[in-house]
This record gives sequence, structure tokens and C-alpha cells, in this order.
Amino acid sequence: MLETPLVIVNFKTYASATGERAVELARLIVEVASEKGISVAIAPQHADIHRVASVVDIPVLAQHVDPISPGGHTGWILPEAAKEAGAIGALVNHSEHRLRLFDIEQIIKRVKELGMVSIVCADNVSISKSVAALGPDMIAVEPPELIGSGISVSKVKPDVVRNTVEEVHKVNPDVRVLCGAGISVGEDVSVALQLGAEGVIIASGVVQAKDQRAAMLDIAEGVLTASGTSFGWYGLRRERQ
Amino acid sequence: MLETPLVIVNFKTYASATGERAVELARLIVEVASEKGISVAIAPQHADIHRVASVVDIPVLAQHVDPISPGGHTGWILPEAAKEAGAIGALVNHSEHRLRLFDIEQIIKRVKELGMVSIVCADNVSISKSVAALGPDMIAVEPPELIGSGISVSKVKPDVVRNTVEEVHKVNPDVRVLCGAGISVGEDVSVALQLGAEGVIIASGVVQAKDQRAAMLDIAEGVLTASGTSFGWYGLRRERQ
Amino acid sequence: MLETPLVIVNFKTYASATGERAVELARLIVEVASEKGISVAIAPQHADIHRVASVVDIPVLAQHVDPISPGGHTGWILPEAAKEAGAIGALVNHSEHRLRLFDIEQIIKRVKELGMVSIVCADNVSISKSVAALGPDMIAVEPPELIGSGISVSKVKPDVVRNTVEEVHKVNPDVRVLCGAGISVGEDVSVALQLGAEGVIIASGVVQAKDQRAAMLDIAEGVLTASGTSFGWYGLRRERQ
Amino acid sequence: MLETPLVIVNFKTYASATGERAVELARLIVEVASEKGISVAIAPQHADIHRVASVVDIPVLAQHVDPISPGGHTGWILPEAAKEAGAIGALVNHSEHRLRLFDIEQIIKRVKELGMVSIVCADNVSISKSVAALGPDMIAVEPPELIGSGISVSKVKPDVVRNTVEEVHKVNPDVRVLCGAGISVGEDVSVALQLGAEGVIIASGVVQAKDQRAAMLDIAEGVLTASGTSFGWYGLRRERQ
Repeated sequence: MLETPLVIVNFKTYASATGERAVELARLIVEVASEKGISVAIAPQHADIHRVASVVDIPVLAQHVDPISPGGHTGWILPEAAKEAGAIGALVNHSEHRLRLFDIEQIIKRVKELGMVSIVCADNVSISKSVAALGPDMIAVEPPELIGSGISVSKVKPDVVRNTVEEVHKVNPDVRVLCGAGISVGEDVSVALQLGAEGVIIASGVVQAKDQRAAMLDIAEGVLTASGTSFGWYGLRRERQ
Repeated sequence: MLETPLVIVNFKTYASATGERAVELARLIVEVASEKGISVAIAPQHADIHRVASVVDIPVLAQHVDPISPGGHTGWILPEAAKEAGAIGALVNHSEHRLRLFDIEQIIKRVKELGMVSIVCADNVSISKSVAALGPDMIAVEPPELIGSGISVSKVKPDVVRNTVEEVHKVNPDVRVLCGAGISVGEDVSVALQLGAEGVIIASGVVQAKDQRAAMLDIAEGVLTASGTSFGWYGLRRERQ
Repeated sequence: MLETPLVIVNFKTYASATGERAVELARLIVEVASEKGISVAIAPQHADIHRVASVVDIPVLAQHVDPISPGGHTGWILPEAAKEAGAIGALVNHSEHRLRLFDIEQIIKRVKELGMVSIVCADNVSISKSVAALGPDMIAVEPPELIGSGISVSKVKPDVVRNTVEEVHKVNPDVRVLCGAGISVGEDVSVALQLGAEGVIIASGVVQAKDQRAAMLDIAEGVLTASGTSFGWYGLRRERQ
Repeated sequence: MLETPLVIVNFKTYASATGERAVELARLIVEVASEKGISVAIAPQHADIHRVASVVDIPVLAQHVDPISPGGHTGWILPEAAKEAGAIGALVNHSEHRLRLFDIEQIIKRVKELGMVSIVCADNVSISKSVAALGPDMIAVEPPELIGSGISVSKVKPDVVRNTVEEVHKVNPDVRVLCGAGISVGEDVSVALQLGAEGVIIASGVVQAKDQRAAMLDIAEGVLTASGTSFGWYGLRRERQ
């Protein structure tokens, strides 16, 4: 359901991506993605999933779901509810919403049962490797100290990206690896893809940008640059297979 | 915003009140409330708030909001997002989602800042009194052992209802007291109102009923019965003022 | 069991108050308290309660206990275990260990059943009032932004102390009010007592002091100063009764 | 520090293993272990670690430690404090105390820095494999539904034990695998060791036994039986190396 190389835009709980502004941002992202021909997904807040998913035709993700089944769970996030609202998957264990190991396993299972995709976030190489053993669809390695910093993981911690790809695939070659934290310009994206990541998660770099469209265009250029280079993602992917 | 006597229907995370079925249930509740002339509010899941609030004109509540402000809080429930989706208030500290005392205070404040209503749930008389000191709009006393039992708090624990009303008003006379847990038929409601509660919270009694409309009609009759009796809610309210 | 005016020294998890150093610090505090004739209590870490309580004859408190009864609760703090180790009471809901409202109520009850004393921490006036409704033995108001700051609550937020004493006693006149946060010298203590607090909680001001004995002596002087002044604690207490 | 085959007795928060009774139980376990020549370790409550470790010369473990360093962490379990009290290691992530993945990684690191041993509990094969990637010293697989049941994991879920040993060693051959849940008689132990486990965790089977000594003697016989059989632990170990 999610084509790579993939750019996920996490709306977090930013005012600039809440309610009607979530819908506007989603539309803008669709336009850029369509214009540039790149694969994107968006993760709006739970309360915004339905109205966003109703107006755009790109994959919508929940930012989190709880490890529960239908029943008496007032106030928690039922995976089925996210799905019926239009989400095709969920971020899991974001560093702003860290989960118990047991719950991560449960969520991956529940999400799979519902035909949804799980993208589990991890702080570092060894946590990524640990998550790989649980069989999620994707792992996004995000050093928490770089989140929101504007300093890109792909530039200052290239080994984290490279080693995560390598170690995750040792445990489970089917898991696709993304990276995130501090990614704000296209070059951060192209470097990430050249390092072997099959996509990126970006948040404030687009959501909080003065000009969201310009920021998203730049990110898209980063994807295209990587795809066009001999050291780029397509090349690496071919080698891996 | 919320007129009393009030019936709140908590949709919880029941399959019978998720997604399109949440919308259908909301419509059914509006029809019954309108036909019978009673005051109702509904609490659907976060992912359903917007689509429910878009089609009905009764108050919609979030089942929970987190004590956060706009920013980097992936996966948490921003009060502003609930509001923009159409919620006019929120349940807080349901026994299925118990909160830290500090967070309850923060949520009451945040919700008030946004012009929203807080309905804080409490397990017993002394916790209700404790919550009263924090100045919420409403307190709903719900002995957790009766939740989902079909055995009504108003019938088997009348003193809990009576004493909560009394003790809460000693601390803060402006807080309105509701009750809940096990309420499933109209008589449970009328007894609750006669005991001094200004409303009830009901969940499985309506949501999980074989015939949701018949169940809701019965609940509405309970409100009308109480309003017409000399020992009823209106009488008690007059005395209190 | 706890005489007022009371100085509680919270050892937290400081290296300077762990293991053998907890025992040494306890001894030093006993010496100062005995020399100056003031009432003190100490709160060492769980692992240190027994060895500290075995060698000193002042009241020892647990820094926290969990709302559990004997049984299968691996790794949690059983109130009975704290008691058998020598604790006569427990701090509850410290701002570094915030608890759910429901659990605070349970802990106060469990601690009372065991004949132990509960000292519940609260961030501000309204949370203190809220806790008062649960009937703990003592409430310690501690604005979290001043904790560890060296800027005393009694000096920069005198109204918080005064209003907490007043509001808590409106709800429950039997609850004794302490204050804490930033208290580091004797004057901070005497001001606190003059404001109506019946004691203070102090941590880094003594535990992390270069000269722990000198720091404790200064704190003791603060208690004596307050006791000797006409605006002091004894005067206020007489008025209240 | 921990020799295998190993029997760990988890005292949990049972009344029959609290305070002075923890010391008595520890003495009894030492006597049996010494008499039978088996390797044992015990996990008393935090408040009991020091007094237990002061009187017995077998390895003592904390039931849990928190992912903190010395500082302001009122009421939490500092690994250093457990160590200074006499613990040589800690259980981590028991199913009665489930932890966030991030915290499990932190605790394993902190414990290692202090020269202590980590024994991480896991519910099933895939969580065990996930934990293996974090490099703990030992993993104890314990299906939670069997804990305290008296129905042994080694008898009713032999594949869980066998597969955990196999999968863990694929990820990290240095991690030793124990098993637990429902183990109450010697035969449960011998079967566990024959399946490839290098030890067991036992709790109610000994702690709550009418005759703790008889129960412990039976467990010890189970270890000896396994050691003497050609299908036993020693054989398996040799093969693995």
C-alpha cells in the first residue's frame, strides 16, 4: 500500500496542521506529490483522519493506535476506528509517545489483522533491530535528540541510518527502513535515500515552514535527486534484492 | 451549553458505535431526544467526532483529551483538535482511562480556556469531592464495579449518588453532578434524578442494546418521569438554589 | 507520630544519600535534630529504609508506595514491606512521581490501614485542596518549578503557602500543611512556618550541600527562629484552634 | 556471576516473603541449594534486599530497577541503590511490571555499566527475540497466562521454550535463556532444562507453598535429574557450542 521511496509527513499536534488547516496541508502535499511524481503519506491527528481522508487520495496514517479490541475502552484509540475513518496504517512508538514492548507487539498484530500497515519508530540501531524481530511493515529510525532540531539525521548520523538498514535486514529482510529527525531540506532526503533508507519521516520541516508548499517542493526534489543518482535508492534496492 | 437533566451516551470503543455506525447511532439519539424533548449529549471516538458532529445538532463530547498544547506531541489528543472537529467538551478521567491528579487539573484548565466543558468521572464520593476542588463543569460519579453490569448505581448505591451531590456542593456549589454505571432502563434514570443527580452517563445500555432505539426511548421516558414527579429533579434544584 | 513543626529531608536518588552515605546522612541529621531540639523525619530510598531505620531513632518515611496489597506484583513497592523495613509513613505523589487520582486515594487508605502516615505532595493551592478531600495526614505544597532551584517557595510564593493552609483547612481542618521547593537556608524555613506551614520538605538544600551538617544546622536555626517569634507557627496555630 | 543451570526464586510482594519472612525464606533456600549443590538466586523486594543480602551468600537480584541515574527522582528505583544494598543484578520487564521498549534498553545499559546482570522477562518467542537484540545477559520467557497457575510452561508449552532458545540464539548466541510460569514441581524444572532452558524462574510454587523447604527440595531434585540425563541441559549446551 505504501510505495517507496516514501515521504511521510507527520502532522503531530501542530496548530498549523489541525482541523481545517490539516485539510489544506493535505491538499497541498497531494498537489506537490502529484506534480513531482513522488510517493507520500500523511499522518494527521485522530480527530482529523476522516475529513482529511475524505478529500485526498494519498495514504493516510494514524499517528498512534492503542492495543485494544472493540469494547469498553473509553478515550483510547481503537485501530478499527482509525481504519474506518480512512487510515491505511499507523505510526507506532513515536519517541513522543513511547510504548511498552508488549504493547508494540500487540499493536503490530492488531494492525496486521485489520490489513493495515505498521510503521514503528525507534531511537537507534539496537532498538530498530529489536523491533525488526516483531515483524512490522516498516521501521523508522529517529534519534530523538535531532527531532525538531533542523539538523538532519542523514547528515550528522549517517552511520545510524546505514547500520539500521543493515542490522534490521539481518533480523528480518522484509522490513523496510525509513529514517527521520531533523530532516528539513531536500538534500537531507536525498542523502537519507543514498544511505539505504527507503523513505523519510518529516514533520516540522514542512508543517511549521513559513511556506509549506516551498518546503514540500524542496523535499520532493530531494527524492528525485536520489532516484536519479547512481548511488541512489533504486541502485541500492537492486543490489539488496 | 449542556442543559440538565442531561443524558450523555458514551459510545466507548464499541463496534456498534464505530465509524458509520457511530453516525447512525447519533442520528437515532437525536430523533428520540427531539421526539421526547429531552437534553442529550454524545461521546463518540476521536476519529468519529467530526463526521458525527457534521450531521447532528446535539452537543458532541470527546471521550478524553490530553493535557497538551499545540506542538510536537505525536499521537496524543489535542483539545483544540477535538474542538475544531466539533466537540464542545470532554469526558475526563473515565474509570477506563484514569488520569494523574496533576493532569486532571491541567485538562480542566485547558478545556476551560478553549470555552469547552469538562465532565470529570469519579469512582466514589471522596474522589468526587476531590475533583470538585478543581472546578470542573460537571462530575459524574461512577462506581467502576457496576460499569457494564446492568445493575444501576441509582438503585443499588443510592447513597453514593445522594452523598456525592451533597459533598460536591459543599466544596463547590457550581459543579453539577451526574451519575453513571449500570444504568440501562428508564427507571434507573428517574431514580438517579430523584436522588439529586442532574443527569446520567449511559453506555452499553444503549450502545450494545439489541434495539438501540427502544433502549433510548426507555431512557427518555425515565427523564420525563423524574421531571413530572414532586420528588424529581426540578424540585431538588429549586431547593438547592 | 510526626511532631510539628517538622523538617522532612527527602534523600531522593542522590548519590550523596545512597547506601552507606544514606546511613551517614541520617546519623548527621539525628545529631543536629537532637542538639537543636527540633522534630525531623527522613525519606531515604526503598533499598536503604531498613539499614537507615536500624541505626537511627527518628521517623523514617518511604519516598513512595504503590497502591497494592500482598500478592503477585513483581517490582512494585508494597506498603507492608516499607513498614516492616522501618518506615512509619510515606511521601505520596511527589512531583517527580506523579500519581493517578484513583491511586492517591488507594494509597492514603492502604497506608492508614497499616497505621502509617501519608504526606501527599501537591503542585499548587487547588491540587492541595483536592487532596485534602481524600483525608491524608499531611499535604506538602511544592511548586515544581522551584524544586531544586535554591529559590524558596516561602520567599517568592508566600501566597501559595498561605492560601494552601487556608483552603486545605476549609475542606479538612485535620490535615497539616507543609511546604517545599527551593528551601535551602534557615530563613526559608522560618518564613514558611510564619506563613502557617507546619513544616517543610527539603532535599538538595541539605543532601547536595557541600557541608551537609552546616546546612542542616542552618535549617534547624530557621525552625527555632520561627518558634520564638510572635508571628511564628505557634501563634498561628493557636489562632486556628 | 550467575552459574547455570540456575533456579531464580522471585519473592514478588507475597506476605510470605516480606521483611523478616524474606530473610527466613532466603536462609532456607541457601540451605537447600548448598545441601543439593545447585545454583540459585533470589529476588526479594527492594526494601528487603539489604537485610537479605547481609545474611546469605547467594546472588540477590532486584525485582526491577528504573532507567534513571543519580539525581532528583523521588520514589524511583536507582540501580546504584539496588547494587549498594547487595543486588548483583535485576529482573527487568516482568509481566507484572511491563516496561517501554526504550526503557528496557536503557535499563540493560545502566545495569551493565554498573557491572550488574540483567534478566529480561518476555511473554513469548517473538518478544524474546526482540529483547535478544538489546543484549541482556539472560532472557526469561514466561507466558503470562500460566504465571501463578501451577500449570508449567515446560509441560504445556514446550515449543515456546524450545523456540525461544533457538530464536534468541539466532539473534544473539551469548544470551542465556531461562523459562518460567507455572513451574511448581521438580519435574517442571527437569523438563525445562531438557528443552534447552538454562534455568527457571519460580515464585508462588516455592514462596506460597505450605512447606517452602519441601517445595524447594523438590525443585532442586528437578535440576539434578536434568543434569544426570543424556537429554539434559549439559548435553544440549555442548551441542550448541
